[in-house]
This record gives sequence, structure tokens and C-alpha cells, in this order.
Amino acid sequence: MTVESDEQTAREDALVERVRASFAGTSDARLKLLMEELVDTLHDYVRRVRLTEQEWNVAIDFLTRVGRITSPTRQEFVLLSDVLGVSMQTVTVNNEAVGDATEATVFGPFFLNDSPQIPLGGDLSGGAPGEPAWVQGSVRDVEGTPIPGARIEVWEADEDGLYDVQHDDFEVYGRAHLFSDSEGDYRFWGLFPTPYPIPDDGPVGELLRATGRSPYRAAHLHFLVTAPGYRTLVTHIFVRGDELLDADSVFGVRDSLIYDWSHHAADEPTPDGRDVGGRKWARTRFDIVLAPGEGVDHTTLMR
Amino acid sequence: MTVESDEQTAREDALVERVRASFAGTSDARLKLLMEELVDTLHDYVRRVRLTEQEWNVAIDFLTRVGRITSPTRQEFVLLSDVLGVSMQTVTVNNEAVGDATEATVFGPFFLNDSPQIPLGGDLSGGAPGEPAWVQGSVRDVEGTPIPGARIEVWEADEDGLYDVQHDDFEVYGRAHLFSDSEGDYRFWGLFPTPYPIPDDGPVGELLRATGRSPYRAAHLHFLVTAPGYRTLVTHIFVRGDELLDADSVFGVRDSLIYDWSHHAADEPTPDGRDVGGRKWARTRFDIVLAPGEGVDHTTLMR
Ligand SMILES: [Fe+2]
Ligand SMILES: [Fe+2]
Repeated sequence: MTVESDEQTAREDALVERVRASFAGTSDARLKLLMEELVDTLHDYVRRVRLTEQEWNVAIDFLTRVGRITSPTRQEFVLLSDVLGVSMQTVTVNNEAVGDATEATVFGPFFLNDSPQIPLGGDLSGGAPGEPAWVQGSVRDVEGTPIPGARIEVWEADEDGLYDVQHDDFEVYGRAHLFSDSEGDYRFWGLFPTPYPIPDDGPVGELLRATGRSPYRAAHLHFLVTAPGYRTLVTHIFVRGDELLDADSVFGVRDSLIYDWSHHAADEPTPDGRDVGGRKWARTRFDIVLAPGEGVDHTTLMR
Repeated sequence: MTVESDEQTAREDALVERVRASFAGTSDARLKLLMEELVDTLHDYVRRVRLTEQEWNVAIDFLTRVGRITSPTRQEFVLLSDVLGVSMQTVTVNNEAVGDATEATVFGPFFLNDSPQIPLGGDLSGGAPGEPAWVQGSVRDVEGTPIPGARIEVWEADEDGLYDVQHDDFEVYGRAHLFSDSEGDYRFWGLFPTPYPIPDDGPVGELLRATGRSPYRAAHLHFLVTAPGYRTLVTHIFVRGDELLDADSVFGVRDSLIYDWSHHAADEPTPDGRDVGGRKWARTRFDIVLAPGEGVDHTTLMR
């Protein structure tokens, strides 16, 4: 993959310059920069890998098929961005490290507005199958000051790895919101999370198979935490020991988001004395730290 | 667009490494390299421009609309590659400079197999409107040795900027093939080329307008030249003085492909004595130089 001659290099350089220059008249300065940098980026790729015309054809065909399967209920371009880690890198770039503020991760497609509100200690499982799991923790700022009244949205798949919205009925389960108490603390009953695959019956699934990758996401519980004066936090918590942690298909795992969960026999007393119906149950603790910043309308965030 | 802290940089670096590593199990070595380099490329872009989540949403929406308008008769992904110069850079990379071999340019969507054969000096215009144009030249190798029997395919739009395939009828015009003679020379009558726009009623057209760019291509005449033992040449010739030369929407222009054309009054005798029906006519000379190499099946080349 070396270029043969100075003349060849000059031709390739001249083309990049010509294409960059074509965006010189862009009135929006940010769009101008995004396009000029995109030109540099894409041309550098083509030149570095010496992309063949046949490979270009394959890429066009791939994108065409990504477009064809995309519909109001299936976003294959988002999946593509996800499995290339581009979604996660965008999240990372937009949530700069601030002290020990909880790290963000991908939003995913399964959040719904208008989740039911539950009281502190309430149950969000909605009767879905799975191991009951007690989750508790605090919401604090980076100085350790408690944040009372923070809104905590939680959503998760059931034991079969399915979210409520993936069923044809309109039953709501595995999602709720609650508010931290006057000490900034919260607690609820949910389900011990289980792994599930991203949709892999399209071109992105083909790419995963061709590259020996799994479509599975590591087991996780989604959180969206908002409080006035703090940066909106979209994150997950994961399960230490889950063998998928190093192979999460969308690269949502951060070491700091992996938590210890304990499992308890059916006859062990639960933290709040609740009767979980003679089943074994799990528990973890997730202390949330919010960065200072602007709350954003989460409906504008990437899915 | 500077990163705030070492911790932030470390997080972004770690993500790139994790995504690259996910392709480690790819059995096809070339696919592995293409994906690893793509990861570097895309992550570097997101990090360099500090892409916002809103911008990511706009990009996903744009690609979704590119996919939606793409059909068997409309290839918006190819147009996107074209207007970003990616198609032309791929052509450039795949046609390394060799001596004074004629430079290649984009193939475009309007080539047809099974064009009519015309004799040397024949007319390919098929009765389409436009100024008659005499084109002659030689086909030689980089040492100047004539190449007899080279197959020369030529295709072009009519005076209205339309190719025959853009009409609903099945009339063929503006395309033909001929063979160089025993001295490696060729000559034919065609039409003086005219500019035309690429389709701009879709998302790519929106991008051109948002960035102040024109959809027009500089006037050109397409050539596909093949001969055993020589690299297949796909190119155009352009018209010196055409004001669109510096604004060609797909960046197909190379300085070496710009030719002088002369215009002649209706009563000037034509080179071959042909009566062009009392119209003014044009002429140019295009000497073709083929690089050594493998002839390729042109149906596998990028469009
Ligand atoms: Fe999820
Ligand atoms: Fe053309």
C-alpha cells in the first residue's frame, strides 16, 4: 500500500485540495468545517487502504442495503454506527470527564417518554419474568453533595432479553421513573438484567458474522438521570462477571459502570422486607454522580 | 475543539482500541484491515470535530433519506460519493500514474453495453441535436508505439444535456464503439459536449445547496478504451474555456484532460469532406496513451 511516485501523490493531494475548496462558499461555518474535515477523513481512508473499485462497489451495495431495510421501526444506520463504536465515541466526546462524575453510555432505541412513576422502593418490573433485583444508591454532585429530587428513569429487558416495546401488545413493563429523596438517595425493585442481541438479520448482522463478532449486548440496566443545574446523564449499569463485558456489540461498557451484584436465596430477608414470592433475588448499589451543566431535553439526544 | 483532560483523552483512546480489537477475529485479512482502518478513520473524525449528538442525529437522518430515495434507477449513495470526491479519489488510487498514460476519471452511470459499432470516421450522434464535432487521435503505449485494434467506446449527452437512457423511449443516440486502425489512429463524428447537472432533487442536492455548490458537471465526452495487455482506461475529455472546469460537481476534471476545440463555419470544408447539413461544426484531437496492465471487465468497475 505504498504510492509509486511523486506524480501520483501530487495527483491525489491535488484532488483533496480541490474537493475541500469546493466547500469554501459554505455560509454556515460549522457545516463548512464538518464537510472539509469529512473530505480529509474519507480521502485519507481511500488513499491509506488503496481502496479498490470492487471494494467501493461492495461499500455502495452495503449502504444501499442498509438503506433498504431501514424503516420507521428499524434503524440500520444507527446499528451500523453502534457496531463501529461511532455512537459510543460521540457519547464520550459529548460527556467530558469531570471529576468522578458517572460515565455516560449509549441511549439505545428502547426508551419511552411517559413511563409510570413509582415510589421509592417501588417495583418497575410490571410482572415481567426475571429474578427480582433490589437497586439502591445515592445521587450526588462531584463534591459529594446530595441531590434531592433528581429524576431517575430506569428501563430494562425482561428475562428473555425483550423490552416491552418489542411485543405487539401495549403492556408496559420494565420501565419507570422515581425521584431521589431529601437525602439524595433512591431505591427500587427491578429485574436482574440479561443479555440480548441487537437485530442481526440485516446487513449489519452480515458484517458482524463476516468479522466473527457477536450481536449480543452485555446485560445492563438503563438509567437517565436529570436534575436542574446538572448535566443530563444517560448510562447503563453492567454486571461484574458477565462474560459479554468484553464483547458488547455496541461498546457501551465502561469499567466504571461494571457493578457487583449479589444473589440471595429465597428465604433470605429482603432489604425492605418485601415478599418476592419465594424466589431468589439479587441486589446491587449504584451511586450516581452528576457533572455540573445544563440539563438537556433528552428527546434531542441520539438514540 | 480541544480535549479538556488526560482522563478524557484516555477514555476516547481506550474506546478506539476496544472497537479495533473487536475485529481481531476477522478471517479475511483484507476485510480486517479495511474495518480496523475504518474504525480509526471514523473515530478520529468524531474526536477531531467534537461531533455533537445533534449533528450525529442530522447525519443519521441524512443517510436515512439517501437510502430512501435510492432505487434501481437512482443511486444517491453513488452521488454522495461523487460530490465528496470519494469516487474520483478511488479512481485515482486505482490508476497509478505511469509515464504519460492518459489520466482516468469517473465512469458515471450512463454507459451501456452493446453500443452500436461505427466505422472509422462514422457518426455516433444518432441524429441527436447538437453541434457536429470531429474527434480524431491515436492510441499508443507509453513508449509511443501505436496500438492497432484498440476498442474505443464513446458516449455523451445531447445538446440538452441528456443521455439517450434518460428518455423514456428506447432510441439509442450519442454512443458507439469503434476500433483504432493499423496505425493506431481513430476518428469519428460526435457532438460538441454540453454541461448537465447531476440529479439534485434529493438529499445530495440539499447538501450542494447548503454548501453553495452547483450540481453541474463540466461538458465532457466519455471514453472507455481497451486493448489486450493494457490497463483499461475510463476517462473523459473536457473543453478548454468551459467555465465549469473548476466547479465540476463530481471532480472529474484533470488538467491533462482539458482539450482545445476549434469551431468552424458551416461553409468550411470538413476534415473528411462530409456534408454536415449547413451547420457550424467543431473539432478536437485526443491522443490516447494506454498504460501497460491487465484489461479488466469494465462491468466490474465502479459507476
Ligand atoms: Fe438496552
Ligand atoms: Fe457524463
